[in-house]
Order: sequence, then structure tokens, then C-alpha cells
Amino acid sequence: MPQKTFYTPVEPERPDTVEESPLFKLINPDSIAFLGASNNFGSMGTSQLSSLLELGFEGSVYPVHPKESRILGLKAYRHVADLPEIPDLAILILPTKIVADTLIQCGQKGIKHVIIVSGGFQESGVNGGRLQQQLIQIARQYDMRFLGPNCLGVANPHHKLNTTFLPHVGQPGYVGMVSQSGSFITQMFDYLARMGLGFSTAISVGNEADIDMVAGLEYLALCPHTRVITLYIETIRNPEAFMRVVKDITPQKPIVAYYVGGSESGRRASLSHTGALSGPDVLYEGLFRQTGIIRAKTIEELFDISAILGNKTWPQGDRVIIQTHSGGPGAVAADACDQEGLTVAPLPPSLKNKLADLVPHTGTVGNPVDITFSKDRLAYFSSIPDSLLSAEYYDMLLVYVLMPKQMFARVLRSMDVPEDQIDAETSKLMDEAAASFSRIMQSHAKPVIGFSFHAQDSSAIKFFHTRNIPVMPSPHRAARAIAAVCRYVAWRKSANAT
Amino acid sequence: MPQKTFYTPVEPERPDTVEESPLFKLINPDSIAFLGASNNFGSMGTSQLSSLLELGFEGSVYPVHPKESRILGLKAYRHVADLPEIPDLAILILPTKIVADTLIQCGQKGIKHVIIVSGGFQESGVNGGRLQQQLIQIARQYDMRFLGPNCLGVANPHHKLNTTFLPHVGQPGYVGMVSQSGSFITQMFDYLARMGLGFSTAISVGNEADIDMVAGLEYLALCPHTRVITLYIETIRNPEAFMRVVKDITPQKPIVAYYVGGSESGRRASLSHTGALSGPDVLYEGLFRQTGIIRAKTIEELFDISAILGNKTWPQGDRVIIQTHSGGPGAVAADACDQEGLTVAPLPPSLKNKLADLVPHTGTVGNPVDITFSKDRLAYFSSIPDSLLSAEYYDMLLVYVLMPKQMFARVLRSMDVPEDQIDAETSKLMDEAAASFSRIMQSHAKPVIGFSFHAQDSSAIKFFHTRNIPVMPSPHRAARAIAAVCRYVAWRKSANAT
Repeated sequence: MPQKTFYTPVEPERPDTVEESPLFKLINPDSIAFLGASNNFGSMGTSQLSSLLELGFEGSVYPVHPKESRILGLKAYRHVADLPEIPDLAILILPTKIVADTLIQCGQKGIKHVIIVSGGFQESGVNGGRLQQQLIQIARQYDMRFLGPNCLGVANPHHKLNTTFLPHVGQPGYVGMVSQSGSFITQMFDYLARMGLGFSTAISVGNEADIDMVAGLEYLALCPHTRVITLYIETIRNPEAFMRVVKDITPQKPIVAYYVGGSESGRRASLSHTGALSGPDVLYEGLFRQTGIIRAKTIEELFDISAILGNKTWPQGDRVIIQTHSGGPGAVAADACDQEGLTVAPLPPSLKNKLADLVPHTGTVGNPVDITFSKDRLAYFSSIPDSLLSAEYYDMLLVYVLMPKQMFARVLRSMDVPEDQIDAETSKLMDEAAASFSRIMQSHAKPVIGFSFHAQDSSAIKFFHTRNIPVMPSPHRAARAIAAVCRYVAWRKSANAT
Repeated sequence: MPQKTFYTPVEPERPDTVEESPLFKLINPDSIAFLGASNNFGSMGTSQLSSLLELGFEGSVYPVHPKESRILGLKAYRHVADLPEIPDLAILILPTKIVADTLIQCGQKGIKHVIIVSGGFQESGVNGGRLQQQLIQIARQYDMRFLGPNCLGVANPHHKLNTTFLPHVGQPGYVGMVSQSGSFITQMFDYLARMGLGFSTAISVGNEADIDMVAGLEYLALCPHTRVITLYIETIRNPEAFMRVVKDITPQKPIVAYYVGGSESGRRASLSHTGALSGPDVLYEGLFRQTGIIRAKTIEELFDISAILGNKTWPQGDRVIIQTHSGGPGAVAADACDQEGLTVAPLPPSLKNKLADLVPHTGTVGNPVDITFSKDRLAYFSSIPDSLLSAEYYDMLLVYVLMPKQMFARVLRSMDVPEDQIDAETSKLMDEAAASFSRIMQSHAKPVIGFSFHAQDSSAIKFFHTRNIPVMPSPHRAARAIAAVCRYVAWRKSANAT
């Protein structure tokens, strides 16, 4: 990494409150000028305006179009100069060659924040690089800040703002993101919703000609909705500033990063994607370790780790107790935890005695605690986890979740519950199990993590998600994410102690 | 591994046809005696009988119960002796202490195949071990073959047979399985269905007192429905026989195995699960390598690899061309392929020229080929993959699949398609894209693999699955599974050459 002597002598001013961030009005605008939408749904701009309207953005929206008088039902304006007020934000989805002129018009109008979605700049070669320099000069001249070019803008569902081309799906959440790929914002809405997660604010930084990843980090560090910051990185353009800012954040708020440029093919792909010159993997690995950034090895891990960090409490050590009623999944979970360096220690005698009455003789009082097929199905989500969470010897509980709808339905049917009530009654039973589990969890200061092979958006899992109990889609994914969180918690303790 | 001199001097007779397997009548019975089901849905036996009936088993089913005259609507019999015929198979889900006596009654009746679901044998200690020996002696005495104890039996959806406690979901498929955990059969029905996969036959072998994993392998090797054999292994009880049999199978039919006993915790868990004494990981790793078994490191991989092997054609080398319209997912796929040792080589000039007309100027003619936002959306599933598959330089095509329903709906809405037809029209468009893609695929002798962040059971993905195009749930999972298949194909070539 560059030495301290290479630091920019004068540090740019850092925001103390989220409102002071150059991104604040861009992420929380009251009014938006939209340039590049039409009534033609084949165009990107129209898709982006649709997304904005579909999420129910509550501020004013002013489409600007040279010909149309109405766009998607809104009054359109011929020129930026014609707008009835100075909007907080302008979004430009225009052909490359007219972007600079339009940016000047925005400056002349007095607009201070711009998202430039258009591509054809730095990422496309030398000429594009020159055009990008021009944008920077225009922005300086008019005292404007802009995001992009070659980005998708931002999604702030807490503000009903989504400038990307796909509709927002799901609920506002706590996962902040700064991404050098717009795809990992817009194409993750549905993915996150299935996991019971959602973005607090997600920022697609594109070529980072003006506002960069570092500014995004500063914003999310101060953003009250954001509990975890995730990064999709193709390159770090300003490593000194990055390190300086990150070192202040990670002891307070976790950062999880996926770096794509580590391999030769990843490097080549990201060069053509955002013109990013990535560095050797070992350099990034070192940077992440040094600054307490949690490294995700896959996109799944980025959000799996976020889900574990979303728990009310974090594991204070690495000792896992596993609860299951199926031997195989329990054994696989134990194996996976072991492989990831977690401690799956045998039960202390006191806990063994306590469980002896709760576990049927065909089960196993060990770690995993395997209840096997038990007639007292409620114990699985009440007395048993209560005992396990009370044991001082463990730092967290990992529970296998299997609630097949059809099994509940069979039992209800045999109890002569009318066919048209089976669905509702099944849901009620599942909901009660999750509620009982949640109550147990609330009464202990330890994290509880579920794992299951059910679909993430199955009704069984949804009942857990709505109660903020993460249920990971496999034992290996659970173990990997938990291990990453444990390493972070240990690092953070030592970072905050010094 | 044990030396050749330790081999059993007399090899047990090996079946030449599937009908000769001791498992044949057990997996394809015409009539079944069911012992342990009642009308009480809290019991495992009742659940298992329900599953059998719900799948629509077409043979005769004879519940045996000491008190009830009808069980789940079927005529019940007091004693095995009372049955009106000698059933092909008896299934025992009874308290441990009456299993031996009941097995004798089955023997006296002349029943030749038995599934013993009951637990409390070898896996529960010394006394259980003695009871298990007794079962073996009884079976020998009456010339019976049995599966278990401590198992869930079999699922052969091609024969509408499912003896496990969860209802079968999805379609009969091509994935064979021998599992030392019943969970990884019964709890995978839904999981496999979501992936567009299904079991051909799955065998839960439990404690393997009589019929063991090796017999299961022999059956699946001969089974015409089975194209891939999967194994969930806690221990290999008879390594000599296992190696002998496997060595004959892997050059013909792929075997994918997950071994859980490699870590200390996995070992402990599997000991209490099926009484299996597992060996060090390195031993199993060696055995797998030597015999050409594909090793899965996670449960997901077990079936991901099966999905890739289900392709009509397999990759004949490791050179991947990646197609995307989103830079980020393309870059991640390239990075993941690189990490897994696949070759993501740049485009040869001839292909570059060919693509120049098809890819818009904002896109990238490289590897990945990144179309970006294109107005000609049909090209993505027709002319572009056609060009890529024609290039001799690559062994397979990896394609990013993003078909958000809401995008199609927006376009249709703007074309004034009535609201009540939007869903059907959207499905039609998606289906056409998948059909076009499938036609392209058929005309080239190279595998095509999709990857997507869509839910596996989303309608978009289903259209691909029904056309036997695997769509993996992430770029990393795609890369890992492809790499495993490439290693197997290379091994197989050399094995068949010698």
C-alpha cells in the first residue's frame, strides 16, 4: 500500500452529519428533473422513470423532453431552463454526445446535484476519458456534485426513491451498499427481499468522476438506517482516502466487501466494465485485513454476512451449539462449522442432564442436539432452544428449520379441519412456532441463526424473517457467514481496546 | 487404503441387470405390507403411509395393525399371517423391541424384501448392536434382504413409490442417490424440484445391516432412469467392495459424493447418527480421486454438479465464453471461473468481427461478451449465443439470465395490452426466449449453462428448466460445478483410454 508520505496534504472536509454529505440531497431529494425518459418503453430512461414513479416517490418530478408535452402522465418541459423551480437533483440518461451541454444547462439553472447514467466516458477509452474530464470541469464551474457517469444512480427505499431501471421489490432495510456495478443494486432487490433483507440506501458510483466510493462510505457511515455497509469493488481509485475513512468506520459499523478484480479474468472484465484498473488480490486482501473489512468471497456471502450482522446481538465468541431433528443436516452443519474454524464443542454435563428429559430416547443429547422425530413438536421452538441458549458454554445457537406445509396440512386434515381452512390454520401454526422461537430469542442475549433447505421465500421461512431471525439457505452458507462475523467481532474488540 | 490382499476372497455375485439386484423388488414392488401406520397423524408410520398414498402408488397396500380395521381408508389386517397374498415388500416402522419378532413373522409369511425404518439399533450402542445382529440372523434364516434399520426407505417416483415421511414434490428425474441420511432424500424433494431436478431413485440405507451403499450403487449403475449417482456418506463400511464397484461405474456413469465425516465435529455427529466410524478426510479424498468420484464440498454442490451433468452434452475442455448484458454479473462470473481453474480466454479476432454488428457500441466485445442495454432483446437468446457456440475456440457457453417479469409487463402495458392479459403475454414472451435459446443449443454440440439471481422457481427460470437448460443460482455456484464436471470429463477420457 502507498506510504503515508503520499497522502494528499490537505484532506477534503469530512461530513459530521449525514446532511453535510455531498450525497445527502442526491439521496434524499424533494424534487427531480428527469432527462432521457420518453413514452417509449424500449428506452432505459423510460424504465428508470417508471421505477421512480412505481415506488411512489413523493416529491416533484419534472421530465424534460425536446418534443413530448407529457411523459408517463407527467407534464414535460422542453428545456431545463423552463422548470418551475430549481430541483434538488437532475438525472441524465442521454446520448453521450449531449451530456456535457445538458450538464451546463443544469448548472445554469442552479441545480447542485446530478446523476449521470449515460455511458461512453472513461470506460470506453481515451476519447471517453476526455469527455469525462469535461464533465468534471463543468461541475466545478457551477459548483455541482455528480454521481457517475456510467452508473444507475441510487435507491433509497426509506425515501421512496429508486432511480434504477428495475422496480424496487420488498421493504426498506438496513443494508447499505456502494457498488461499482449498478447491476448489484437493481438486480438484487428481489434477491434481498427473498432473504428478508432490504437496502437502506444503495449507491451505484459508476466511473466515480466526482462523487466516489469514499463519499458513499462516509454517507452510509452516518446514515441512521444503515446497520451494515456492503461494497462491490472492481478497483479502489483513491486508496489513501479509502483507508483513512474505512479505519474510522469499521470499529463502529461493519463493512463487508466483494472484490472482483483479483483474478486475471475478473481484472480484464472490470477494466472494460468501468475502466477500473484493479490490483493484485493479495494487495486487496491485506488492505481488507488491516482495516477490519469483512471479505466476502462470493456475492451470496456479501448478503449472508449482512443477514447475520442484522441479528439484534452478535456472537461474542465462536462456540456454536447446533439444534436439529434430522441427523444428516445436523451432521453437515457440524462439519461445516468445523471446516470454517468455529468451535462445535461437546455438551457440558449440566446441560446434558437438563436435556435428558426433553430429548426422546431415539435422539442424541450431544452437539448437535438431535431431537429426531418427536411428538412434542412445540418443544423444538420453546423449551429446547431455551435450555440451549441458557448454557453459558455457547456463544450462539444454530437451528435446523424444517416446517413442511404439507405435514401440517395432513395433521389438520386428519383432525377434520375443513379443506378451505387448512391453509390459514397451517399458517397460524407456523406463525406460532416462529413467535415462540422469537420470544425465547428475546430473552437471551445471544444470536440465533436458522438454516434450512426451504425456499427463502417459502411461507415457513417468511415467518422467521419477519421476526428478524435469519434463516440461511444451507448449513455451509450459515457456517461461512457466522465465521466471518466472529472474526469481525474479535477484530473489533481489539480495535476498540487500543 | 487396504491392500488387495485384504479383499474378501470370494466376491459376492454382482448383478448384470437391474432386475437381478437385491434391491429391485424393494424399489419396484407391486404390493406392500405396511406395519406401523395408524390413523394418528402424530406418528411417523402414518406420515410414511400418507406419502405413499399421496404419490398414487399403483400396487396393493396392506396396512397391518393390532387394533384398527381400517387405516387411512384402507382395509387393515391384524397379523402379517392374515395378508391375502405374499407382498413383494414389508415396511416396518415399529418400536425397537418388536422389530425382530415382526421380521420373523414376515419371514414365515414368505416376504423376501423388508425396509426397517425403526431406530434403536447399532447407532444407539452395544445393546442396539446386538439387536441388529439378531435382525441379520433372522433375515439369513428366511432368505430375506432388508434395508436399514434406522432409515427412511426409498423413493422411486418413476414407480410412484415414496416410503419417506414427506410427500414427494416435483417430477421424476435422473438423479440417483444413496444416502446414509434419510433427510437428504425426503427433505430434498422440494429443493430438487425448485432446481428443475428430480430423483430417479433415492435409497436411504441407514445402518446398512444387510443391503449397503455398495448394493445401492450397483442398482443405480444399472437403473435406466439414473444418469448421475449422488452419495451422502458418513462412512464407507466396506471400502474394498466400494472401490471395486465404483471403479467399474465411474468410467460409465458419474458419481458425485459428499462426505461429512472429514472434520472432528462431523465425525462425532455421524457416529451418533448412524453409528458410522468415519475416517480422516485425506483418506476419503484419495479414494475419491483414485476412483474418479466427483467430490462435492457442500450439499448444494452435490446437486449443482448433477444439474450440469444433466446437460445433453458435457464440456470437452475447460474454455468458457461468458455472455451477459450486465457488467457486474459478467465480471463476477469471469472472476469465479478463473478462481475455479477454468479458462476464460479473450475472443479470437474472427469472433470479434462477427460480433461487432451484434453488440451495441456501449457494450463490450470481449470475454465476457457484454451486450449492455440493447433494444434488440431477442438477439440475446438467438443470434448472439449462436455466434458464440459456433466459435471453435470455446468448450461451453455461460449465460447470465435476467428476465424480470415487471419489465416485460411495463412494455406490454405501454403497448395497451389489457391488464388481465399482461401475465399471460409476459409468460409467452419469456417462454419464446427460452424456446429460441433451446433451439440454438440443440444445433450445437456444446453445453450451455445459465446463471441468475432469480429465485430458482421463478417463472423465468422454469421456462429454461423445462427445456433442460440448467440455470445456476449464482456465478460462483455455476463456476464451481462446471469446474468439477470438467475435471471428471478429463479423468474419464484418460480412464477409458487405458
